[in-house]
Amino acid sequence: MFESAEIGHTLSKAEYNQRVPLIRQELLNLQQELREKKIFQIIILIGGVDGAGKSETVKILNEWMDPRFIETHAMGLATEEESAHPPMWRFWRVLPPKGKSGIFFGSWYTQPIIDRVYGLNTKAELDQAMERVVRFERMLFDEGALILKFWFHLSKEQQKDRLKRLKKDPETRWRVTREEEAHFKNYDKFRKVSERALRLSSTAEAPWMIVEGMDPRFRYVTVAQTLLTTLKQRVENPERQQNTHLPVGLPPLDNKYLLQSLDFSRKVSKKNYEDRLAKLQRDLNLLVRSPRFKQISAILVFEGSDAAGKGGAIRRIAGALDPRHYQIVPIASPTQEEKEQPYLWRFWRHIPRRGNFTVFDRSWYGRVLVERVEGFCEPSDWMRAYSEINDFEEQLKQGGAVLLKFWLSITKEEQLLRFQAREKTPYKRFKITAEDWRNREKWDDYEVAVSEMIERTSTDIAAWTVVEANDKYYARIKILETVYTQLQKALS
Amino acid sequence: MFESAEIGHTLSKAEYNQRVPLIRQELLNLQQELREKKIFQIIILIGGVDGAGKSETVKILNEWMDPRFIETHAMGLATEEESAHPPMWRFWRVLPPKGKSGIFFGSWYTQPIIDRVYGLNTKAELDQAMERVVRFERMLFDEGALILKFWFHLSKEQQKDRLKRLKKDPETRWRVTREEEAHFKNYDKFRKVSERALRLSSTAEAPWMIVEGMDPRFRYVTVAQTLLTTLKQRVENPERQQNTHLPVGLPPLDNKYLLQSLDFSRKVSKKNYEDRLAKLQRDLNLLVRSPRFKQISAILVFEGSDAAGKGGAIRRIAGALDPRHYQIVPIASPTQEEKEQPYLWRFWRHIPRRGNFTVFDRSWYGRVLVERVEGFCEPSDWMRAYSEINDFEEQLKQGGAVLLKFWLSITKEEQLLRFQAREKTPYKRFKITAEDWRNREKWDDYEVAVSEMIERTSTDIAAWTVVEANDKYYARIKILETVYTQLQKALS
Repeated sequence: MFESAEIGHTLSKAEYNQRVPLIRQELLNLQQELREKKIFQIIILIGGVDGAGKSETVKILNEWMDPRFIETHAMGLATEEESAHPPMWRFWRVLPPKGKSGIFFGSWYTQPIIDRVYGLNTKAELDQAMERVVRFERMLFDEGALILKFWFHLSKEQQKDRLKRLKKDPETRWRVTREEEAHFKNYDKFRKVSERALRLSSTAEAPWMIVEGMDPRFRYVTVAQTLLTTLKQRVENPERQQNTHLPVGLPPLDNKYLLQSLDFSRKVSKKNYEDRLAKLQRDLNLLVRSPRFKQISAILVFEGSDAAGKGGAIRRIAGALDPRHYQIVPIASPTQEEKEQPYLWRFWRHIPRRGNFTVFDRSWYGRVLVERVEGFCEPSDWMRAYSEINDFEEQLKQGGAVLLKFWLSITKEEQLLRFQAREKTPYKRFKITAEDWRNREKWDDYEVAVSEMIERTSTDIAAWTVVEANDKYYARIKILETVYTQLQKALS
Repeated sequence: MFESAEIGHTLSKAEYNQRVPLIRQELLNLQQELREKKIFQIIILIGGVDGAGKSETVKILNEWMDPRFIETHAMGLATEEESAHPPMWRFWRVLPPKGKSGIFFGSWYTQPIIDRVYGLNTKAELDQAMERVVRFERMLFDEGALILKFWFHLSKEQQKDRLKRLKKDPETRWRVTREEEAHFKNYDKFRKVSERALRLSSTAEAPWMIVEGMDPRFRYVTVAQTLLTTLKQRVENPERQQNTHLPVGLPPLDNKYLLQSLDFSRKVSKKNYEDRLAKLQRDLNLLVRSPRFKQISAILVFEGSDAAGKGGAIRRIAGALDPRHYQIVPIASPTQEEKEQPYLWRFWRHIPRRGNFTVFDRSWYGRVLVERVEGFCEPSDWMRAYSEINDFEEQLKQGGAVLLKFWLSITKEEQLLRFQAREKTPYKRFKITAEDWRNREKWDDYEVAVSEMIERTSTDIAAWTVVEANDKYYARIKILETVYTQLQKALS
């Protein structure tokens, strides 16, 4: 979920200076219009890790907009007066009225997440708290409020560097509080708990936006631009169904995608490949034949650009298994029968029983990839799909499945070479169609969709493994190693 | 929640014979239209207590409609094959496609409820299961499915009589299984758990319909008529927002409302009243002054017809309390400031801290009473209000409040006498306005709204106390006794 916010997003000073005046002017105008028409209120939640620039961003928003119509609330620990009331009372007290904006620096998420990190509530209680939050936010949405939730993120490495830097300088040493050091010690736990909380509360009505917190210019403009775009759509189309106006699907400011940050130069030599492949296939075969495997099932999902090598990778896995134990499910367009059912139905029918091994060649992610990019479904449909898919995968996991998801990534140049090679080779020519060329033209749209898919569905229950696949040998070894390691972990 | 299904609803044979042919013809036509257009599927869930006619109703539906387009699934315990898959797999397998109907006799509710009754899962696990169900049904709704959920109910008395009758007759004795006897032994527990499950899963997209199961003719026609009405609206307006088509707000077939089943002849003599009032006020005063009261708060809600005596009852409670400790909050039309907030905001601001006592003279129930009847809000707004109010009240309860809700009920004749008396008495004349007379004209609409309000919001967390208020003395004593008893229970 946080992968896309760990790739070093930045915004140059020149671009910052160019963008900011425009954003400020537009924000002020829209704020004025909202103020006059009083059609809805804006509720902005700011959460995330320490030192990722939360309070600075709140300050900037107050600077860039008219602060008379913004109410900022730092919601720390409950006061004595607040504790004597039901927990949500303190938030209801300070909800902004229609026409105004409320910024919540710390919110109804803070307490449940902190409590879980420090073991003061159980996982089931965290889930219950998130469900209450979802109901609460849905009510706000139904009442017309525009809800924007920003989560500021730093990777563990970035956080560590930051603390080191602060502590080295006597001028800034005081800023590292004991509380913050305790939080850092619990970084992994905090990340895991936040990931769960964000997954459960990222709905079509109020999705979380994850913002990389390293570069101040990037984070300020990301938040302000997201607010601006969403607000503008909403003010201009007050009648249209609200949740098509949410900031899902906005490209990152610096046009830097997760997939571009991969190291495509990774390679494995042919000799090395053959040795490791043979060993991995043997090990995997033994593992799947072990009696313990009867207690679980394996579900592998392969997605990737055209010609990224999904088929080849799948064959190498199949080569390790007994044909009685695995099933490969190629996913094409839905049949008429499948169209008459909810979209997840055609995948449910192939979910294996315990003891079995199923490989999906393309999958339920078609909803947020091809269906989104080609406009086969409404934005509201693919927007709700993220949480529906997360729910679905949680059920698979609870039902005993080990779920492994692979995105095979190649560069645009590599794809071109492979397309050309396929056209030249008679027995490979069937693999390349006019549709592949058409898809290639939509490369950029797919890049947005894939990044968002990984951000919203790489979760504590089922993470994506992104595979640098320009070198087929490297890709296959990485995939087989992941499958072997994860299955072994699940069995031990 | 089950109150309205315990008042002995019936349908005469003559009316049955007159209605059924019409219903059958229309149902067949609509089913045919749905079959041709394939615009959505119908999912009917049948749940409830033993012996309330579940399976007979399923049989009737198959008889009255074209059974070729109905798939009936009795979902008992999971088979070995089903258990080897994730729990929802068995339901996905048998979802009806667009154009067809699926009747689920036993459903995704059965296992969580039974498990909770027999202590195999915790309350938190039941809640989690219900949340999963809500998400699942919401997805079905978003995918276009029409979901109808019927819960068949028998009161404990009715159930007891039924078992006795069956056991007496050697011909039918075999029908009382050991399982059924065990269920009856757990009747109270079963009722409590079902009430919670139904409350948590009664959403605007898929509300539960509670059907009294005693009279076969009544239950068959209720189910068929509800199906017919909902289906018709949906087929005729495929484009309109779906959840305005749900079967909320249909009057009972026999036009018999909960409020009409009250015994309005109950009386208390003046002498008796004065003695008991004095004692109750003294007891209540002592109770509220006890140090233990600092740990809780009391929230009293008074609703009722005009001139039902709310003011008089509230004054008798106030008379028992120290003015420093209570607050009376009269609720009128919302102010401009209140209109700019979500509708529950104006009540949250008056929620007392622990140790305090607040009386609401009218309340948040205005949303599902006056706002519904007068059309001040959209049907989709008051429909979602039931679950929003239940959420709200659960938060109050979790925050330490004892929440007591009173509906003061008088007959239409008694209201007329009181209105006339008020107009004749100079110092009471201010109490009667043209609006009161206008409201009186909508008596029948209010009766529907009140019955539905009680059905949908009298829950395991906060039950309604319906007060027969034709005799003011009787009403006041019943209210004070309830307040005293409930507070004492909460404090011990």
